[in-house]
Amino acid sequence: MKIYATLLLVFLIPVRLIAQQRPTTRPVVHLRTVIDLTHTLNANTPTYEETKEPTYRVNTVATLGKDHYFAREICLPEHFGTHLDAPAHFAKGQWTVDQIPPERLMTRLIVVDETAKVENNSDYQLSAADITNWEKLHGPIPAKAVVVLRTGWETRWNSAKDYRNPDAKGVMHFPGFGMDAAKLLVEGRKVYGLGIDTLSIDYGPSPDFPVHQYSLAHGLYHLENVANLPSVPANGALVIVAPMKLEGGSGAPVRILAIVQ
Amino acid sequence: MKIYATLLLVFLIPVRLIAQQRPTTRPVVHLRTVIDLTHTLNANTPTYEETKEPTYRVNTVATLGKDHYFAREICLPEHFGTHLDAPAHFAKGQWTVDQIPPERLMTRLIVVDETAKVENNSDYQLSAADITNWEKLHGPIPAKAVVVLRTGWETRWNSAKDYRNPDAKGVMHFPGFGMDAAKLLVEGRKVYGLGIDTLSIDYGPSPDFPVHQYSLAHGLYHLENVANLPSVPANGALVIVAPMKLEGGSGAPVRILAIVQ
Repeated sequence: MKIYATLLLVFLIPVRLIAQQRPTTRPVVHLRTVIDLTHTLNANTPTYEETKEPTYRVNTVATLGKDHYFAREICLPEHFGTHLDAPAHFAKGQWTVDQIPPERLMTRLIVVDETAKVENNSDYQLSAADITNWEKLHGPIPAKAVVVLRTGWETRWNSAKDYRNPDAKGVMHFPGFGMDAAKLLVEGRKVYGLGIDTLSIDYGPSPDFPVHQYSLAHGLYHLENVANLPSVPANGALVIVAPMKLEGGSGAPVRILAIVQ
Repeated sequence: MKIYATLLLVFLIPVRLIAQQRPTTRPVVHLRTVIDLTHTLNANTPTYEETKEPTYRVNTVATLGKDHYFAREICLPEHFGTHLDAPAHFAKGQWTVDQIPPERLMTRLIVVDETAKVENNSDYQLSAADITNWEKLHGPIPAKAVVVLRTGWETRWNSAKDYRNPDAKGVMHFPGFGMDAAKLLVEGRKVYGLGIDTLSIDYGPSPDFPVHQYSLAHGLYHLENVANLPSVPANGALVIVAPMKLEGGSGAPVRILAIVQ
């Protein structure tokens, strides 16, 4: 119930009428607008791995003209499009995607915008200093939040080549979380999840995914290829993280909805 | 914004401290508990169609032991497990699953429990009188709600045979919405969606799916194989409907989360 107490405190702040009343144990969220933070899934979706065969395949099994209804079958990787990495993606014995407790799927959304730094450095890694600087501007990052790094990379989404951004040796270049930022958020701020608008929480050139190794082993989930971050505030939104409930899944496509004040 | 005004009014009622203050245009929802209304997807999931080949296929493409990470690929029908039927499933020119506006994915949840009638009649069809009787007990069904019929069928989920419940001729027998109930909800109550804890909004023996034909053509969505309905109240919960965002999809597996007062 602590998460709701946190929500109560935070979401009350901008509402003066309510803020004037005595504290209550009932959590309160002020809805205004629902923002979809999810890319639409299709065959042009950029993927981390380059494969010879398409990883997203659609088979139409019934049509309105012939069958009087329309239906399809879909094949896709668990880590496709806007998706969630379950802790079990890298960490033995940790939650698979279906095992993540529902109360971790609805929480506060924190957006750290480092677009300006990324413009000068495609390999930028979020630092612990970036986190503490954010807190100076916006207040402390609450426990159990989901912290999403906004890098501006979404503008490349419609070109898999630009989004993957490989060099002549095939090494990809895009920004990610640095280990010191991850450690501060996991151990110092006790957040539930990390998210980013690129293909990976670890930056593009990473050979060994240290942030994946570390934070998934600590029971966090990751959100990758998050969309539409310019539409949500740095602080104050609520996020709904709704992955497909695949039994034993290492992850899954996820629908992410934000409620903005 | 009208939906939020409705939420404001409804969710304020049980909170006396807040109810005493002057009306405000800011919508307020009081969170308490997140309830997952979604079945876990696996190869034992009952399906409407009987097929020779399995409709749910999993291919493990990387393991912790060999690859230092765990990942899989999934193949499944759009209408599998707890899923959403988009209007385009039956109606030409209507929204595909990715086109449903996000504001329709977070709304009020109404649960109509007809478990007792279904115990005596597996082919029970919800009637308009059932809806008006519900309203006598719980108040008017608000516009833009999602109305879910609870039939008790979920107890059969772990046996595809019992859940499909075919007779000697292969005709399935399970309850559904009657046309008069659907017409009252669509045209009289202007709801956003219909849901049920069986394989289909139309009852099992239906040869031509009149409720699908009618309500999907009116732009509603359907939720089928909804889980865990005994855990949510008849009135007063908020529902998050989060389908996989498949471009051009006739429907998709959906994560359904309820926020209960």
